[in-house]
Amino acid sequence: MSSSFGQVFRIHTYGESHGGGVGVIIDGCPARVPLTEAEIQRELDRRRPGQSEIVTPRKEADTAEILSGLHDGITLGTPISILVRNTDQRPGSYDEMAVKYRPSHADYTYDAKYGIRAPSGGGRASARETIGRVAAAAVARQVLDQIHPGIEILAWVKTIQHLEAKVDPSTVTAADIESNIVRTGDPEMVEPMIEHIKTIRSQGNSVGGVVECVIRNCPAGLGEPIFDKLEADLAKAMLSLPATKGFEIGSGFAGTLLTGAEHNDPFRNIDGKIRTTSNRSGGVQGGISNGEDIVFRVAFKPTATIMTSQETVTNQGENTELQGKGRHDACVLPRAVPIVEAMATLVLTDHLLRQRATSL
Amino acid sequence: MSSSFGQVFRIHTYGESHGGGVGVIIDGCPARVPLTEAEIQRELDRRRPGQSEIVTPRKEADTAEILSGLHDGITLGTPISILVRNTDQRPGSYDEMAVKYRPSHADYTYDAKYGIRAPSGGGRASARETIGRVAAAAVARQVLDQIHPGIEILAWVKTIQHLEAKVDPSTVTAADIESNIVRTGDPEMVEPMIEHIKTIRSQGNSVGGVVECVIRNCPAGLGEPIFDKLEADLAKAMLSLPATKGFEIGSGFAGTLLTGAEHNDPFRNIDGKIRTTSNRSGGVQGGISNGEDIVFRVAFKPTATIMTSQETVTNQGENTELQGKGRHDACVLPRAVPIVEAMATLVLTDHLLRQRATSL
Amino acid sequence: MSSSFGQVFRIHTYGESHGGGVGVIIDGCPARVPLTEAEIQRELDRRRPGQSEIVTPRKEADTAEILSGLHDGITLGTPISILVRNTDQRPGSYDEMAVKYRPSHADYTYDAKYGIRAPSGGGRASARETIGRVAAAAVARQVLDQIHPGIEILAWVKTIQHLEAKVDPSTVTAADIESNIVRTGDPEMVEPMIEHIKTIRSQGNSVGGVVECVIRNCPAGLGEPIFDKLEADLAKAMLSLPATKGFEIGSGFAGTLLTGAEHNDPFRNIDGKIRTTSNRSGGVQGGISNGEDIVFRVAFKPTATIMTSQETVTNQGENTELQGKGRHDACVLPRAVPIVEAMATLVLTDHLLRQRATSL
Amino acid sequence: MSSSFGQVFRIHTYGESHGGGVGVIIDGCPARVPLTEAEIQRELDRRRPGQSEIVTPRKEADTAEILSGLHDGITLGTPISILVRNTDQRPGSYDEMAVKYRPSHADYTYDAKYGIRAPSGGGRASARETIGRVAAAAVARQVLDQIHPGIEILAWVKTIQHLEAKVDPSTVTAADIESNIVRTGDPEMVEPMIEHIKTIRSQGNSVGGVVECVIRNCPAGLGEPIFDKLEADLAKAMLSLPATKGFEIGSGFAGTLLTGAEHNDPFRNIDGKIRTTSNRSGGVQGGISNGEDIVFRVAFKPTATIMTSQETVTNQGENTELQGKGRHDACVLPRAVPIVEAMATLVLTDHLLRQRATSL
Repeated sequence: MSSSFGQVFRIHTYGESHGGGVGVIIDGCPARVPLTEAEIQRELDRRRPGQSEIVTPRKEADTAEILSGLHDGITLGTPISILVRNTDQRPGSYDEMAVKYRPSHADYTYDAKYGIRAPSGGGRASARETIGRVAAAAVARQVLDQIHPGIEILAWVKTIQHLEAKVDPSTVTAADIESNIVRTGDPEMVEPMIEHIKTIRSQGNSVGGVVECVIRNCPAGLGEPIFDKLEADLAKAMLSLPATKGFEIGSGFAGTLLTGAEHNDPFRNIDGKIRTTSNRSGGVQGGISNGEDIVFRVAFKPTATIMTSQETVTNQGENTELQGKGRHDACVLPRAVPIVEAMATLVLTDHLLRQRATSL
Repeated sequence: MSSSFGQVFRIHTYGESHGGGVGVIIDGCPARVPLTEAEIQRELDRRRPGQSEIVTPRKEADTAEILSGLHDGITLGTPISILVRNTDQRPGSYDEMAVKYRPSHADYTYDAKYGIRAPSGGGRASARETIGRVAAAAVARQVLDQIHPGIEILAWVKTIQHLEAKVDPSTVTAADIESNIVRTGDPEMVEPMIEHIKTIRSQGNSVGGVVECVIRNCPAGLGEPIFDKLEADLAKAMLSLPATKGFEIGSGFAGTLLTGAEHNDPFRNIDGKIRTTSNRSGGVQGGISNGEDIVFRVAFKPTATIMTSQETVTNQGENTELQGKGRHDACVLPRAVPIVEAMATLVLTDHLLRQRATSL
Repeated sequence: MSSSFGQVFRIHTYGESHGGGVGVIIDGCPARVPLTEAEIQRELDRRRPGQSEIVTPRKEADTAEILSGLHDGITLGTPISILVRNTDQRPGSYDEMAVKYRPSHADYTYDAKYGIRAPSGGGRASARETIGRVAAAAVARQVLDQIHPGIEILAWVKTIQHLEAKVDPSTVTAADIESNIVRTGDPEMVEPMIEHIKTIRSQGNSVGGVVECVIRNCPAGLGEPIFDKLEADLAKAMLSLPATKGFEIGSGFAGTLLTGAEHNDPFRNIDGKIRTTSNRSGGVQGGISNGEDIVFRVAFKPTATIMTSQETVTNQGENTELQGKGRHDACVLPRAVPIVEAMATLVLTDHLLRQRATSL
Repeated sequence: MSSSFGQVFRIHTYGESHGGGVGVIIDGCPARVPLTEAEIQRELDRRRPGQSEIVTPRKEADTAEILSGLHDGITLGTPISILVRNTDQRPGSYDEMAVKYRPSHADYTYDAKYGIRAPSGGGRASARETIGRVAAAAVARQVLDQIHPGIEILAWVKTIQHLEAKVDPSTVTAADIESNIVRTGDPEMVEPMIEHIKTIRSQGNSVGGVVECVIRNCPAGLGEPIFDKLEADLAKAMLSLPATKGFEIGSGFAGTLLTGAEHNDPFRNIDGKIRTTSNRSGGVQGGISNGEDIVFRVAFKPTATIMTSQETVTNQGENTELQGKGRHDACVLPRAVPIVEAMATLVLTDHLLRQRATSL
């Protein structure tokens, strides 16, 4: 197990889907940062099941309690411990899954690794684990507001299966994204995406897609070569999320179709600042931010839980079939948006604090 | 700076392209592993400039010297320090670049971060830095041979710009790949790719592409949830390489076009073992290896150094032009292959040792 | 802040004395280790206030709740989160201390470092923080019982001020130590020590002393040169405890009075095993255990809180006096014994798991 | 192996006494710090064998070469690699020691841990390993001079066996200490100590003693509770040095003989600053510096190598005798002084940089 992330602004998460609760300790948060439970709760509510008609109807209030590190609404510089109790537990729903491995879930691999697993609700591999990340990122956001208030971190649904939104990373707003339950920035695609999710769900099937994220007004100079390059830490952050299969920054995989003459970003003096006139680098060069928008994309596979019968084996290795049931997202993308933002916020906050350590 | 990678099998690299040398310390290598400088040299030679007619003609012997950690050809369990002296230095070639920022290089961002940079040859951001990684991975390979001798780690050129090789990850051999200077596993694409690189080079331009990699015979159970998932550490490893813009595992970005019913990998008992009958997961589920082939792809952008004139600015922010010169790869892909293998080897070795720590 | 300890068996603590609670996350605990809350509670009860007539009468039930990482009494390999709620809070008792710095406490330095502090009960600097360590060590003890069941870790009160107990580290038993409320291993010193503590307390004064600790049946080979030598990690562990001022192992400071000829431990073959005939090394040579008893001592200063008037300053820097009050230990030594054992257990468990990682 | 030390200003050492060389990589050094090899060499010369008539006459030039991280005498912010070649190797002198375990050396424990060891000169356990630490600390000193130029770090020989120097930590100067080859700050004890070392050496015997160290003008607020308290990191640093058996800070073990009323350090406003009128805390309270002098002591055992015959065993477990020979220090204290200063400098520099990371 390795449930820690970050070097200076460092978080430690814990919890299974159906145990006493899930939570996080944040170590390395600066002192004297204003913080309320409401700021944490607002982000947890964006991640929460049951928030709209296109996500899982499970009822999880996900109420955050701050156990430590805060005094009269101000951080103490000591570890901030945040606990979210588990409530809507139905262990009974999972009896069959204790025996049969759900295809493309982590049941088999947890057994292979640990020789034991929490059989209900996915245990530690449940997406419920991301609550701690989102809560920690809400704290990180308050830190950013203290030391670099202008930084904006926005994610949105770029594609759902074959449906692609047209979104300009340099101008899209939080209001644009939050104005619709699918959390895409393209008004034209809201209805098609919602309808597609509903159709897929009615078939007991599922879909995935791509979340795109931009970090705007990021100062130049963040990222720690060689191994902790900014894009390397972002890639790790995103691939540590459940259901992710890919990460690309700037031109990404499509950039391999260009020649160097087409791909390079020319530098120009614009209004007295050194800028690039294109941004195929995606805001990072040599692992360090260059002051342009940081733009990256994350691929989420279709939800592994589907409502049809699938071939699988038991934990004794016998061939069998599994009929999916329960209350699951047919498409995780709308709820993945705040989680992608959360991980980007954690990476950026950590790198901002790291940069301060060694600046003369 | 953060020039360390790995948790148990942990490496620390150092060195600029035109200083005293580049190298690596490996800390956490088990004792009593047979090791020779020849094994390290063989891998360095695969990475080396001047090895074929399609790579940079720079003459860098890249001779490895083991300074510590070895006694009579056996590792001591103490840090292994490997030094490669710099030899073919032509600081004069870089005078102009001390003043003008090369587009899509790290010149500007290093200045933005550190307020200083080694002006010649890219300094720390030079691909020469990867020598330490390749040398360390050659040691890691010896460790694997002691504790899991069957593990195979092979990479190859999957695409160069629009040219795509057909390679079966489950059967391709090292001999297939090493049989041609472009290091692709598809005999049909060898000549087209070589010709394309030569044509592009003759135009003073450059191209990128995709390297694909497979890890075969990996035991199930490797990878440390939550944050050190196997794919997360692989993604970080790959995005820490110069010129990389994307990473995907298994079905990757294309997997987002499938439904869950199409994407899930059914489990079956095959010859008494639990296997999946498809491998869209790419050998990893829930961050843990499932015993199937681990398959991933890495996007490399076209080389930033091109031989034509480009718009840029000076380090004083004045608009100017830069005429490329020097001896550079028009396509880094053939030399990237051993580097991708090296990073995969480092990740896997580290996770194998981590898994031993907590297994009862 | 840095509230993490250990490399493989790694703990993260949190909590102030008068907030929502204190607790710990254990990351890196092997899976399939039997564990109950009762095993944790037993150690917390040894540490607890109010357990005897010579410790603080504060009523803190210190009831442990395991929030995660456990299923049906067996560890899952996932993070184990343990929470102890705060109950007996009397913030009113501390009003004066919010303004006046208690001499030789951490009030002033926390303000100097963080610009803020939890004013009541010592906040994060309270000895209440050690609850998380003791709970984590109770888990570590179960791990030891699985992989090296014979290892014994025992501490006792060696001195209280000028009173010194005669204890043979190679034969003293847990029963000897627990048979008396002062937790010394010398029956002759029980009454004198108890009487001395009572006398000092009646004077509103306090005393310190030395805790001695032995690790018996430790396998040879533990400890990681160069910086993570076993004695280095033990020293750090002990000096991280509140009120500690010194650490020595084996011959310690007194060993500096001997010559090399007197101090060296001769090796002999005893019953077919390589042993030393004396143990001035204290069971560690070159940072690595040699299989002999590991013996060390820790100095605890007299409790800083006393019931008489002392000169001090306000947080505005004005000279003033502070009259001590509240319910405090006149001597922390009896309650320090289980905490010293806890830290030794954590160090040893971590090093045992580290050693497994790189053993072929 | 764990050859890394520090969190932000982080060093990695390597090398055996009789291999290709010993050295260090410093990662996390700020950019734009002036640095020359001469500054490193000056400290290495203080540590070097053969520097006076009372230390080992071995001839080791210990010439430092900076391989990376420096450009025109200014640090680049990239890893600084420093190499010191081994020269005066006499493997022949050590043939017997390849078979017979030297008492109170690390020969046996390295074999127990690794199953192999470098047989000549102590290998990795040789005090020669401290070269990397001293070189790194010379770099750290330049960093301190940039960000806190007034900090003074001075160590001296406090005792040699029963001979004790009278030194006032608040006033002793570097010139006082360097004025005599024994490196004590008490002029009265120079001759007695030198004579005692010579006498002991003439007997083929050895002695140890205590090094005392002061850090003056340290700002308040350094040290990271809970586990990385300043005294905890100092204790670890010192106990990681060869031949150390104890560490105490401020009142130390003697402080346990005082009552709380005697031991507490009263706060007073002195010249507008919050100060303590005594310093039994040793400059650290609650793990954080309080702005007073940080004073600590380190116990060094008598040198294990003596020139008389000792009982021991072979690596096959047979009883035998070993006749010491070679060129060794009869007393390491004079050469330990710069090494203690080096470790204190590394701890302080790291904590200064850590504090900057999270200060708003």
